[in-house]
Amino acid sequence: MSETLELLKELIQRESVTPNDLGCQDILAERLVKLGFIDERLNFDDTQNQWLRRGQQGPLFVFLGHTDVVPPGPLDKWDSPPFQPTIRDGQLYGRGAADMKGGIAAFVTAVERFVTAHPEHKGSIAILMTSDEEGIATHGVVKVVEVLEQRQEKIDWCLVGEPSSDKQIGDVIRVGRRGSLCAKLTVFGIQGHVAYPELAENPIHTLAPALKELTEEVWDHGNAFFPPTRLQVSNINGGTGAENIIPGQVEVQFNLRFCTELDEATIKARTQAILDKYGFRYDLQWRLSGNPFLTSQGELIEATHAAIKTVCGFDTQDDTGGGTSDGRFIAPTGAQVIELGPLNASIHKVNEHISLDDLETLSNIYQQILVNLLAQGHA
Amino acid sequence: MSETLELLKELIQRESVTPNDLGCQDILAERLVKLGFIDERLNFDDTQNQWLRRGQQGPLFVFLGHTDVVPPGPLDKWDSPPFQPTIRDGQLYGRGAADMKGGIAAFVTAVERFVTAHPEHKGSIAILMTSDEEGIATHGVVKVVEVLEQRQEKIDWCLVGEPSSDKQIGDVIRVGRRGSLCAKLTVFGIQGHVAYPELAENPIHTLAPALKELTEEVWDHGNAFFPPTRLQVSNINGGTGAENIIPGQVEVQFNLRFCTELDEATIKARTQAILDKYGFRYDLQWRLSGNPFLTSQGELIEATHAAIKTVCGFDTQDDTGGGTSDGRFIAPTGAQVIELGPLNASIHKVNEHISLDDLETLSNIYQQILVNLLAQGHA
Repeated sequence: MSETLELLKELIQRESVTPNDLGCQDILAERLVKLGFIDERLNFDDTQNQWLRRGQQGPLFVFLGHTDVVPPGPLDKWDSPPFQPTIRDGQLYGRGAADMKGGIAAFVTAVERFVTAHPEHKGSIAILMTSDEEGIATHGVVKVVEVLEQRQEKIDWCLVGEPSSDKQIGDVIRVGRRGSLCAKLTVFGIQGHVAYPELAENPIHTLAPALKELTEEVWDHGNAFFPPTRLQVSNINGGTGAENIIPGQVEVQFNLRFCTELDEATIKARTQAILDKYGFRYDLQWRLSGNPFLTSQGELIEATHAAIKTVCGFDTQDDTGGGTSDGRFIAPTGAQVIELGPLNASIHKVNEHISLDDLETLSNIYQQILVNLLAQGHA
Repeated sequence: MSETLELLKELIQRESVTPNDLGCQDILAERLVKLGFIDERLNFDDTQNQWLRRGQQGPLFVFLGHTDVVPPGPLDKWDSPPFQPTIRDGQLYGRGAADMKGGIAAFVTAVERFVTAHPEHKGSIAILMTSDEEGIATHGVVKVVEVLEQRQEKIDWCLVGEPSSDKQIGDVIRVGRRGSLCAKLTVFGIQGHVAYPELAENPIHTLAPALKELTEEVWDHGNAFFPPTRLQVSNINGGTGAENIIPGQVEVQFNLRFCTELDEATIKARTQAILDKYGFRYDLQWRLSGNPFLTSQGELIEATHAAIKTVCGFDTQDDTGGGTSDGRFIAPTGAQVIELGPLNASIHKVNEHISLDDLETLSNIYQQILVNLLAQGHA
């Protein structure tokens, strides 16, 4: 059995449902400290964070990951117990196999092979682990980044081992993410009886043209890296339930996934300008879930493209789709950030799995990226 | 104490919350049978209906009323017990004082005085009572009308004693009512994640332009008797509650109060034409609460105008506003129908009341209408 597979099985056996780590980070420490890594724990509240670093010089390369997994869901729907790693037909089944203990196992063994082969590598290598990526993520990477920034420990390159691949391992890497901004709009009217609309003010009626305009607004046209910004209404609720009452207010929730052509302030201003046109009374609450970020070029992308070409023989695709990841906390520090990991088809589902071949290929790609960036003799 | 006041107090003491009569109709029978009325009970299910008629010839004049009342609501908000008629400052307080035991008492004593003075009056006089006007009204007047039509007992003039007056007794009579049509619209989309709108179809977005058009539609311009038809949205609900989910459907309830310029079929066709323009999938359910009706001219209106002028000294105002009443079941038979009764300011509220002066004036108006229409020697 390969080192990577063995490590992955060991990690899956820990039922580290978010925000628990249950000793996963200890396993990493045990393996890497003997290779010269310093094991630092930066725990906040119920969240276990780990900062393993080898070397004091720049540039600093970081593998970012999380040891927590989502709950297994209905156990009877699993063909084998979720925390008992099981191989069937060339696949390893278990919760976290793809998201993202597979990525962790692949980069830990990649680091081991690389450091063994290049003990005098350039710069520094670090592994940053958290146990709260799948939860609310308030005491995880965001807090570690604060600590690192305080002591001016600057990350140059960050590779997030999240499942990015689509049809085959390495076919897609994520070089950025859209921003996400949530709004809660309340439009006020005057309650009354439907038979006497002249004594009332129907907030659904006053909202209607503004809702049409908001949902039809062309926010931007995207750019070379991002699709256009999109607004989606998720909830609308108004009315007392009675069919003869004009309600006093209506509530609308909407979300914008926005690209680097826009920023939070511009979206807020444009939304308010649309609403203000219609002259109704409203309240508007915003919550920023994350700003967009993008690593459009640089050594990290070049090294990754080259590594995938070397290991897999094809050109990978840069992508900015999907939801959020902890990469959003690293990008604002100025680091180059990409995400590269297993196929994402089975994540968060029952019978989550990773192909044994993919696991080895992924580890080899990670190792090749390190070679491209940090091996002495490389540019 | 006047006869009318005494009768009203007797009626209020019966706690005839809908659909109960609790002997109110027996009180009427006892008084009127000795004046030559035939007391017929046409009970259906839990509803007590009474048809009291004097005479066999046409034309047939009917006083229409209901002995049931709405529940009293919070007892501690009443200044005196709702079923204990209490006089304060020239007002009689009690549940049903205005809606509509006051009207009943006024027309019963008016009939008594008229019949005593004109025992050989023209045509026939009837009193039609139900105990389910405030409830769902499925076994009340609508059923009695079926019986009358079956035996070809034709109503020529119907006076509904519902509270129609606004500032002073007799200032407003209702000569018609708008129709009421309710709709429940469901717009279907495809549920999905707000981050992947291209894989979903947001029903709130597809609805938005249609909702704007529906709420801005000019249905008609009303006419000399009715205000323009109006559509009001009473309820709109879509969304799972989660802020990152595009919902699979959205539901909208709306009501049209429509005048005699439109009919049910036209409204349905025009609504569907608006919705069909936008090409979304939807389901639309309708419920007709009542068609519009109008008594724009005729002997009943003339006699009522003249009676109010005689008794009060001013010209009354014809009106078609307000909600529905049992008049909607009489109008389709071809009868002339008007509503004339107490001030409506306190109905369905705590401390419902009627002024003692109004009660006498109302009874005098009713008597004068009978004189104008049925006294021998009158045209």
